[in-house]
Amino acid sequence: MRVDGRKLDELRPIHIETQYIKHPEGSVLITVGETKVICSASIEDRVPPFLRNQGKGWITAEYSMLPRATEQRNIRESSKGKVTGRTMEIQRLIGRALRSVIDLDKIGERTIWIDCDVIQADGGTRTASITGAFVALVLAVEKYMAEGKINKFPIKDYLAAISVGVDPKLGEILDLNYIEDSSANVDMNVIMTGSGQFVELQGTGEEATFSREQLNQLLDLAEKGVNELFHEQRAVLGEFADKIKVLSKEEV
Amino acid sequence: MRVDGRKLDELRPIHIETQYIKHPEGSVLITVGETKVICSASIEDRVPPFLRNQGKGWITAEYSMLPRATEQRNIRESSKGKVTGRTMEIQRLIGRALRSVIDLDKIGERTIWIDCDVIQADGGTRTASITGAFVALVLAVEKYMAEGKINKFPIKDYLAAISVGVDPKLGEILDLNYIEDSSANVDMNVIMTGSGQFVELQGTGEEATFSREQLNQLLDLAEKGVNELFHEQRAVLGEFADKIKVLSKEEV
Amino acid sequence: MRVDGRKLDELRPIHIETQYIKHPEGSVLITVGETKVICSASIEDRVPPFLRNQGKGWITAEYSMLPRATEQRNIRESSKGKVTGRTMEIQRLIGRALRSVIDLDKIGERTIWIDCDVIQADGGTRTASITGAFVALVLAVEKYMAEGKINKFPIKDYLAAISVGVDPKLGEILDLNYIEDSSANVDMNVIMTGSGQFVELQGTGEEATFSREQLNQLLDLAEKGVNELFHEQRAVLGEFADKIKVLSKEEV
Amino acid sequence: MRVDGRKLDELRPIHIETQYIKHPEGSVLITVGETKVICSASIEDRVPPFLRNQGKGWITAEYSMLPRATEQRNIRESSKGKVTGRTMEIQRLIGRALRSVIDLDKIGERTIWIDCDVIQADGGTRTASITGAFVALVLAVEKYMAEGKINKFPIKDYLAAISVGVDPKLGEILDLNYIEDSSANVDMNVIMTGSGQFVELQGTGEEATFSREQLNQLLDLAEKGVNELFHEQRAVLGEFADKIKVLSKEEV
Amino acid sequence: MRVDGRKLDELRPIHIETQYIKHPEGSVLITVGETKVICSASIEDRVPPFLRNQGKGWITAEYSMLPRATEQRNIRESSKGKVTGRTMEIQRLIGRALRSVIDLDKIGERTIWIDCDVIQADGGTRTASITGAFVALVLAVEKYMAEGKINKFPIKDYLAAISVGVDPKLGEILDLNYIEDSSANVDMNVIMTGSGQFVELQGTGEEATFSREQLNQLLDLAEKGVNELFHEQRAVLGEFADKIKVLSKEEV
Amino acid sequence: MRVDGRKLDELRPIHIETQYIKHPEGSVLITVGETKVICSASIEDRVPPFLRNQGKGWITAEYSMLPRATEQRNIRESSKGKVTGRTMEIQRLIGRALRSVIDLDKIGERTIWIDCDVIQADGGTRTASITGAFVALVLAVEKYMAEGKINKFPIKDYLAAISVGVDPKLGEILDLNYIEDSSANVDMNVIMTGSGQFVELQGTGEEATFSREQLNQLLDLAEKGVNELFHEQRAVLGEFADKIKVLSKEEV
Repeated sequence: MRVDGRKLDELRPIHIETQYIKHPEGSVLITVGETKVICSASIEDRVPPFLRNQGKGWITAEYSMLPRATEQRNIRESSKGKVTGRTMEIQRLIGRALRSVIDLDKIGERTIWIDCDVIQADGGTRTASITGAFVALVLAVEKYMAEGKINKFPIKDYLAAISVGVDPKLGEILDLNYIEDSSANVDMNVIMTGSGQFVELQGTGEEATFSREQLNQLLDLAEKGVNELFHEQRAVLGEFADKIKVLSKEEV
Repeated sequence: MRVDGRKLDELRPIHIETQYIKHPEGSVLITVGETKVICSASIEDRVPPFLRNQGKGWITAEYSMLPRATEQRNIRESSKGKVTGRTMEIQRLIGRALRSVIDLDKIGERTIWIDCDVIQADGGTRTASITGAFVALVLAVEKYMAEGKINKFPIKDYLAAISVGVDPKLGEILDLNYIEDSSANVDMNVIMTGSGQFVELQGTGEEATFSREQLNQLLDLAEKGVNELFHEQRAVLGEFADKIKVLSKEEV
Repeated sequence: MRVDGRKLDELRPIHIETQYIKHPEGSVLITVGETKVICSASIEDRVPPFLRNQGKGWITAEYSMLPRATEQRNIRESSKGKVTGRTMEIQRLIGRALRSVIDLDKIGERTIWIDCDVIQADGGTRTASITGAFVALVLAVEKYMAEGKINKFPIKDYLAAISVGVDPKLGEILDLNYIEDSSANVDMNVIMTGSGQFVELQGTGEEATFSREQLNQLLDLAEKGVNELFHEQRAVLGEFADKIKVLSKEEV
Repeated sequence: MRVDGRKLDELRPIHIETQYIKHPEGSVLITVGETKVICSASIEDRVPPFLRNQGKGWITAEYSMLPRATEQRNIRESSKGKVTGRTMEIQRLIGRALRSVIDLDKIGERTIWIDCDVIQADGGTRTASITGAFVALVLAVEKYMAEGKINKFPIKDYLAAISVGVDPKLGEILDLNYIEDSSANVDMNVIMTGSGQFVELQGTGEEATFSREQLNQLLDLAEKGVNELFHEQRAVLGEFADKIKVLSKEEV
Repeated sequence: MRVDGRKLDELRPIHIETQYIKHPEGSVLITVGETKVICSASIEDRVPPFLRNQGKGWITAEYSMLPRATEQRNIRESSKGKVTGRTMEIQRLIGRALRSVIDLDKIGERTIWIDCDVIQADGGTRTASITGAFVALVLAVEKYMAEGKINKFPIKDYLAAISVGVDPKLGEILDLNYIEDSSANVDMNVIMTGSGQFVELQGTGEEATFSREQLNQLLDLAEKGVNELFHEQRAVLGEFADKIKVLSKEEV
Repeated sequence: MRVDGRKLDELRPIHIETQYIKHPEGSVLITVGETKVICSASIEDRVPPFLRNQGKGWITAEYSMLPRATEQRNIRESSKGKVTGRTMEIQRLIGRALRSVIDLDKIGERTIWIDCDVIQADGGTRTASITGAFVALVLAVEKYMAEGKINKFPIKDYLAAISVGVDPKLGEILDLNYIEDSSANVDMNVIMTGSGQFVELQGTGEEATFSREQLNQLLDLAEKGVNELFHEQRAVLGEFADKIKVLSKEEV
């Protein structure tokens, strides 16, 4: 039995509250068990220098934690005067992932800023950030379409992320909380599309190793998990849910 | 009439939700109109070097805004690599204010970290931070007393803060929202104790000036406002509310 | 009796030496007791980006101390790689104060840089900086008017600043030196115009509190102090002194 | 045909020159095609604070490129005043990978610093760094064992890394050079042990996606590639090569 | 004729005002023509880590300019967040120079901080800093000897510095002011002891070159210049002047 | 006898390998005894802002050491977040030196970046950098001339640098290695042209002093040393060697 009583292939309860804060074009509060992240999508009417005059847009992501989102208080990165390597890795990952399911030509010369701010952390903050940020992105795009600023729907597919890992006693498990993550031998983050394609795969033995057989079992678990996340995303997107086409494997 | 229909001496609706996030010893989400701040109080069992071996504690505060707490997205201070002057001013102010109503000898060699993170801003974020942080501080202290780590109740008095200002058309007004703050000729933040004493007074003509008569009217408004805030603080503190003694003017 | 033998409402000796250094458009060495500050006003023929093409100017201030201006040597902020919160607060204060008595439309698209460098500190460095910087500003403006670069006299009123405070034994006192400042319960900086209006008021209980009665007595002392400073400013400005109109209370 | 005439599953020529620079305890120059990296292992007789008094050691890695290792000159990170996100990701990856094949208890309270400095880049710098750093690490450990400072051989297994990817025209390919890497749809770095276990897997669709079938083909290619790298590592380690035990899958 | 009417081998007027600011153990305002530098020597009762428990002291120097010490206002290094290369070169030079004429064993485990703050610049600020700092150093040492904290007089010789250069029209000249320095082909700073020994020699063709013959003429001029500086140093040191032994060439 | 058996006026073995890395327009690996530096010259088709639209070019230099180029591992400057004073001094020196022998009008509005990266250090890294960088510069210029991008040969003279010093036992010596440098009383770096002119002279008593007689002997040694370096430079430049005119003393 897992520390919180879940089955090996069971997600924690997911809740996505839309338009959680009023200023961003799109925003959500995503809750995955005890992990809570405010994800917002802000649209700015210009692009970074390397993209100017190409008629296409950009998505960039930033990630942060409140100092006391965690059991022990962390020093703010603004006080340290620099962003840590972990934060950089995560925000680069979020940006890449979202860019894989949007047609940047269709948003014009605009930058969409994704901000993922963890207000309470209990494992899986980066995957929750991606899953929530996708919804905030769709909401922001819908707002700009409703205002006539974007004409063609640019979202190509659903996107969600989940962690899987190898527990030293229980073996392969889905959606690790903080305690499980701390003791896992293997930790893997899997980002997938609604069509069942991989966007990114990051698996580490955390100073241990894993076999190809374990890898296959982990990927099976992850696939199960993201499908449940897509279900939740569709539920909160309501009328917009069906605008996002899920391609069959043949169409990909 | 004010832009949001309030009377000149009327506060915006106040709501304080306690234990909003689970890890800190004390935390609240304070909502003042459309301004929302997560305030947390974290107790660390050591003091900064300048206080070591003196048997007394310290309170220090940090303040930040989510990038899209505001109408326009702000660049994160962690990305800039430095904390702005405005942030420094505010966090120094919050720290000084809270230290004025606690007996630091009674908390032992501990640091209480106050984190005020604005998730949505509509004027008055620094005064909301102080009013909310006071409640988070009391909750944290109570937790440590319940666990037997602090023996004598160290809180000396209630503490709340409010802004007042001079509107170019309406004259003196209480609790300015963002639009009012942007157009005000004079802006004053007043921090007071439950006993009606001043802790801090910061009034600026914002490149204009004000008379002593105006000052007196502003202080009258502020006194009215903080008394309503004390009422709300008492309500959410429940059983702990009466442990905080409010001194009569003679006792001060 | 005060530590240096002054009466409770007595300023320290003031001296303002004009054109103390040769390169700036305006400069003074202001001496207030043992506190000495070089204030210079430098005019640059462009404005910061947020003001471009608006036909008006800007004033910005910087403040620093020599490392050994104080009893104990301080580490340079350039060595630390960042400006402290205290410095930021002070330079923002100086800038705001000077902007309140100048008509920025009349100086054209120019920035006036105010540099206040404390070469010896004995309390009251920020108020001495403001009082001295006002004179340097007038001198710089006069130079540009004499050269025909500015056509309309932009200075609207006199400006001076003084500290007042509550001594634990003596009560309310005017113009605190370093020793008095260190032991004061309440510390207030008051910036006023020649017309008797307030520009800025910053009073702090320094982890203590103060009553409205004390506030009124402190403001009376401050008013007496700034009037003496205006007298000294007029003396050193000589022929230019009367160009600055002091409005009666009715005209404000 | 690939741009450099290789077969789809063909590595570029590998060369590892040992003790390339004289000061480090272990060093190599690894050449993979046109990619050249100086890898050094420096042993310091103390550990970071979080490991003190635990009787075990630590490995940490740093990665950098000479400014003109690349086609376009890059600004030095020392001039920028900060390490980029890409560099941080890579050096964290190198450190984690090496820690997976060493028994840190056996090296005592020591830190082994791995420095990977790319002097010429043509794709695959991070995987070349890991493959070369492993050899430098073994050399450094052997030096300390020869001097009697380390008593038990701490290396648990071989370690090597390779990139695989999906070329838009050719499909799955092994060991991408810079041109191939720039145009690949999918890019995956695979780090494996001599026993055929995975240490780390990082695959990204680079704003595209990939299927599970493609993943399997990529992993087959990677396995072939690392086996050839182990062969080269054994060759240059000479007499030390057999001290490193390669476990059968059953023993893992 | 030189721009200011001096002869080729003529120094500008020198003035050294001792104890110019009150807090440092030793301080001077040195004026060389229009160049003015506040030099202070502060004694701290501890040494940097690399010197601990060796029974000897250290001298370290810092150099800075007020922003408007120059014709054009310079951005403060504290605002830039870093010290420029020019400043670093100068402060390293001042420190090395002063350390050459003091017996660090005789001052005990103390650090003497030399601060050279240029309040007005007209060429030769680094050489004026050294010449003035030497006097401040002697005054600080004398103060500590008078208080019984240092027992043996540690100053081994006089020290002064001067610039020489090659003017494109006039040839070799002594003590260049800012205009001369800007147009000189060769610029050399010479630091010498009272015994006529060189401490440091820094000559640069400033993107031009110079011959050995020119070098010899420049050194002759420099020798003449420093001798006049020693005369001025002796004058202001008064009773302490003769405590500093000037060795004959044989004794060096 | 010197520690490595050389005569007092003997250089260490010199070797210059051209086009050591493939991307830069010019590059060398210079080996001076055990000191090894990769010098590269990169041509960028634009100039810094202060030179725009003047039709001339610029040369700027950067210098760095690999962390383990030295006996003890050094912390990377990118990790420290700033460039040390020593590095700044050296890179400013390299830049100035190279600019003295090139006609910047002839290279057009281009910047030549000189990168000197020390991969192994044993004294004399800055002089080896200059001597090697000169060759890299000539190679880069030749490449641009061959491609028709530069029309007139801009190199005015040969340039090389060497260190000389005073050993406490042996007296004046040429080309100090690390051990000699550490114990020398006087350390001087001399940069000269093929015509026998000085470009830069930096001599320091390293907290000691030196006489004019010693200076003359050091300069004689340096002259001998640079002549041997010019010989080596000519050898590796091959066909280009005679394009660089060496002026007789009369022509300078």
